Amino acid sequence: MGDPAISRFPIPDLNALPEDIKERILAVQEKSGFIPNVFLALAHRPDEWRAFFAHHDALMERDSSLTKAEREMIVVATSGANGCPYCVVAHGAILRIRAKNPLLADQVAINHRKADITPRQRVMLDFALKVCRNSDEIVEEDLDALRAEGFDDDAIWDIGAIAAFFAQSNRLANLSSMRPNDEFYTLGR
Amino acid sequence: MGDPAISRFPIPDLNALPEDIKERILAVQEKSGFIPNVFLALAHRPDEWRAFFAHHDALMERDSSLTKAEREMIVVATSGANGCPYCVVAHGAILRIRAKNPLLADQVAINHRKADITPRQRVMLDFALKVCRNSDEIVEEDLDALRAEGFDDDAIWDIGAIAAFFAQSNRLANLSSMRPNDEFYTLGR
Amino acid sequence: MGDPAISRFPIPDLNALPEDIKERILAVQEKSGFIPNVFLALAHRPDEWRAFFAHHDALMERDSSLTKAEREMIVVATSGANGCPYCVVAHGAILRIRAKNPLLADQVAINHRKADITPRQRVMLDFALKVCRNSDEIVEEDLDALRAEGFDDDAIWDIGAIAAFFAQSNRLANLSSMRPNDEFYTLGR
Amino acid sequence: MGDPAISRFPIPDLNALPEDIKERILAVQEKSGFIPNVFLALAHRPDEWRAFFAHHDALMERDSSLTKAEREMIVVATSGANGCPYCVVAHGAILRIRAKNPLLADQVAINHRKADITPRQRVMLDFALKVCRNSDEIVEEDLDALRAEGFDDDAIWDIGAIAAFFAQSNRLANLSSMRPNDEFYTLGR
Amino acid sequence: MGDPAISRFPIPDLNALPEDIKERILAVQEKSGFIPNVFLALAHRPDEWRAFFAHHDALMERDSSLTKAEREMIVVATSGANGCPYCVVAHGAILRIRAKNPLLADQVAINHRKADITPRQRVMLDFALKVCRNSDEIVEEDLDALRAEGFDDDAIWDIGAIAAFFAQSNRLANLSSMRPNDEFYTLGR
Amino acid sequence: MGDPAISRFPIPDLNALPEDIKERILAVQEKSGFIPNVFLALAHRPDEWRAFFAHHDALMERDSSLTKAEREMIVVATSGANGCPYCVVAHGAILRIRAKNPLLADQVAINHRKADITPRQRVMLDFALKVCRNSDEIVEEDLDALRAEGFDDDAIWDIGAIAAFFAQSNRLANLSSMRPNDEFYTLGR
Repeated sequence: MGDPAISRFPIPDLNALPEDIKERILAVQEKSGFIPNVFLALAHRPDEWRAFFAHHDALMERDSSLTKAEREMIVVATSGANGCPYCVVAHGAILRIRAKNPLLADQVAINHRKADITPRQRVMLDFALKVCRNSDEIVEEDLDALRAEGFDDDAIWDIGAIAAFFAQSNRLANLSSMRPNDEFYTLGR
Repeated sequence: MGDPAISRFPIPDLNALPEDIKERILAVQEKSGFIPNVFLALAHRPDEWRAFFAHHDALMERDSSLTKAEREMIVVATSGANGCPYCVVAHGAILRIRAKNPLLADQVAINHRKADITPRQRVMLDFALKVCRNSDEIVEEDLDALRAEGFDDDAIWDIGAIAAFFAQSNRLANLSSMRPNDEFYTLGR
Repeated sequence: MGDPAISRFPIPDLNALPEDIKERILAVQEKSGFIPNVFLALAHRPDEWRAFFAHHDALMERDSSLTKAEREMIVVATSGANGCPYCVVAHGAILRIRAKNPLLADQVAINHRKADITPRQRVMLDFALKVCRNSDEIVEEDLDALRAEGFDDDAIWDIGAIAAFFAQSNRLANLSSMRPNDEFYTLGR
Repeated sequence: MGDPAISRFPIPDLNALPEDIKERILAVQEKSGFIPNVFLALAHRPDEWRAFFAHHDALMERDSSLTKAEREMIVVATSGANGCPYCVVAHGAILRIRAKNPLLADQVAINHRKADITPRQRVMLDFALKVCRNSDEIVEEDLDALRAEGFDDDAIWDIGAIAAFFAQSNRLANLSSMRPNDEFYTLGR
Repeated sequence: MGDPAISRFPIPDLNALPEDIKERILAVQEKSGFIPNVFLALAHRPDEWRAFFAHHDALMERDSSLTKAEREMIVVATSGANGCPYCVVAHGAILRIRAKNPLLADQVAINHRKADITPRQRVMLDFALKVCRNSDEIVEEDLDALRAEGFDDDAIWDIGAIAAFFAQSNRLANLSSMRPNDEFYTLGR
Repeated sequence: MGDPAISRFPIPDLNALPEDIKERILAVQEKSGFIPNVFLALAHRPDEWRAFFAHHDALMERDSSLTKAEREMIVVATSGANGCPYCVVAHGAILRIRAKNPLLADQVAINHRKADITPRQRVMLDFALKVCRNSDEIVEEDLDALRAEGFDDDAIWDIGAIAAFFAQSNRLANLSSMRPNDEFYTLGR
């Protein structure tokens, strides 16, 4: 077929996948109307696939004082900094939907300092980008700046752990040259 | 007690942990003679803990054309680049043991270009460090350089995915200011 | 009114502007259905306004072996590298329209290496980004790489001069915190 | 002839230029005793030439609370940061003349922190260099630091817009490998 | 013989060296039990050898308000930043011995922010690393931060001059690919 | 007195200096007509002074296949990269004199790629700047590029060791905010 490749690495046939993985993928397809390419691009390694999505869900679906939109802001801002097309485009769509705001994802991906966010969210993203770029330079003063905005230790962990998880995710997507589904570009606009 | 903290975040009591986590930790303690701090520092988030170690094992324990020592080289080189004391010290110990070489870990952590490794391993670490630092700049030519040294797609994924996993791991350790156990500093020397 | 500011600097009343500037702005409004904010944000300095748009038009409207879509690719790629929301969003819209491609602008803004462009366009953008980031390091070999793809001196000047003009434009937009019109986000999708 | 080239791009014959451009060039030659190479190196593109010099004059000749020497300091400091020989050497000469100070241009080009300037001028150049290097990181606090030194919005625009204009100018000079006239090296010493 | 080379440049025969150099080397060997490779790797240039070690001793052996362990911390932290295996490994051993602390050298080499040092030593190393990486950006405020921790001008000179001396030393070691003696890896552990 | 300070650190009285240092300084003054400030700014530490100038002379005065002008080019190019006003201005003067070329020092300080030098000298300065900025990344291929231009090991050592020595020198000058003598600015123009 003539479609552009969605990964540099092999994409297994859906029916050849372990049952649990196949089921999850079909459930996502049912809900979204399409299969986001990340579910296919990681499937050549079932154990890594399971751990990856379990980790993703543990961070992104848990009860947290961060809203789901705020968590997607962290994903989009750090993925922009890492030059990762898959994560900016796919999570940009999710951010537009979660925030019910068609402009926010592009703003956050390009330059969070100019985005339509609150000062508290600005501090949150400043920290997420430090985890993304210079985690070795994190000092106690950085956490104090978060606490001054009302983030407790649990929220601080969420900010940092989401930035860390997508540090991995962005690298896997850039390693495999993972292609965002065309559908994501317009969702939520 | 007067011992230095092993994390900025809370360390749960071992007996309060879910049974599966407690069991794995006790098994590690039994085998190593001590509990590596990463097992405790992540335990305040059981679901993340499970996903993290499942992912770690899937990459580091699987059958691969990369030796276990080579995989640890990737960890140590990228963790050095990320300024992550826990991972350099802990995986430095494992590298010394796996490679049966007391000098290699320090060499790889400081500057892999001067390390006692083969030209093939040098190319492997060059790529791992590109995934670590500039994954957005990965191009087909980078993969060709690996193929020229005999790495197949499966091995290339392993190199990149290990570098990506420790991009996450280093950030979690720097976020939490995770302290390496004293025992690691001298193991395998 | 409660609308967000479009610039840190004063926005003159349209009717208080010199006749030539007012006329051009009304003509643009007539054609586009709205006034792109850059026309207002620079208007507090009429002489600079005139020179800026004259320079813009001289580069972007002239007969050139670069297509208009290719010229917009240069704008979007370098503006992404400079973290300039106004230029990425506004020229992203123009790129989508010029290229009749709803996906291209986001791809080029995030990481041109993964965009749906030809190898020749990839070399064009590699050079534009060198002008953008490290113009001091330009050497004859860089121009040779362009010539090998069939770009002649006139086209090379266009690539470099567009990247240079938007180096200025991005800085003016970031200086003034210029806000993209909401309309641009969805044009051409 | 054996003189070194003044540009990688074609230099039109003076008599073949449009009348307005030729006149301006002859007037400059009359006044300075020589033709600064930038007037010739851009002349292969008459419309761009006109816009470029109109913009230059609008910024550098206007009434401003910045002295002409201060404006040249901005040019020299940012051109030094951009590694642009033409602009450092040519505007270094103008700065020496405007400031009636034979040492200042070299000081500002190499490291403005050590230059014989006032604390207010130091803050001005700190900001100009942020526009030059990291305009995406400009925040309101940066403008406050300028206001604390007595710069009003009009002066702040001048600082930023001059830095932005020479971001373009430096890139055109580096693109074309524009050669400074020998005369500039000693003027004003 | 099959030992790895200790330098890219020639190593003179010990007996062919000028008497003063030979004597010093034999005295070091007597005291340490082996000849640190730096004494041999620089010996092909006797005048440079003499100046280098005279400068080293003047800084590292003088009476100073900095302890000898603190001076070695500066060496190890800056050598880590410069990716210099010889200096990290050799001076890491000396630091372990001087500080009677088997963990400190690895901590300081990887990330001084997480090392078991006092806040005053942390400020000392922050400054040493600024001298190492961005000496052009040193401003009076940096010295004030040191004075606030009780460092007087004499101590500040020592910090800066040791960082400067090892900026040279690291470059000579990296130029020559100088190999640390195996003995250093375990000394003081 | 109203003269600007030549250093942040104390300047000893000439007559209070050890005889050998005083003699050398008076000899330089006799020859040059003034005392270059570096001789005074380092004199508060006589042992370091002696080692510093001995090392300087060993490198800069020795018989070498590099001309004295070429050695000064290395000093000026690397000092420009390090933002060191003293070394750029003082050694710029010496370079003009050694090369009998009034333009060369400014060219090399701003951007050696555009300087009036031979291709062989260009390769020499490329390597010197790698020693200056990224000595950890030096690989055998870098030395091969020098050998291809006819530099032997002795010349390669000179290039690298001069770049290394001025890595130290630039840091000492930036540490002390060492002021270039006014005389240097015009010497050799």
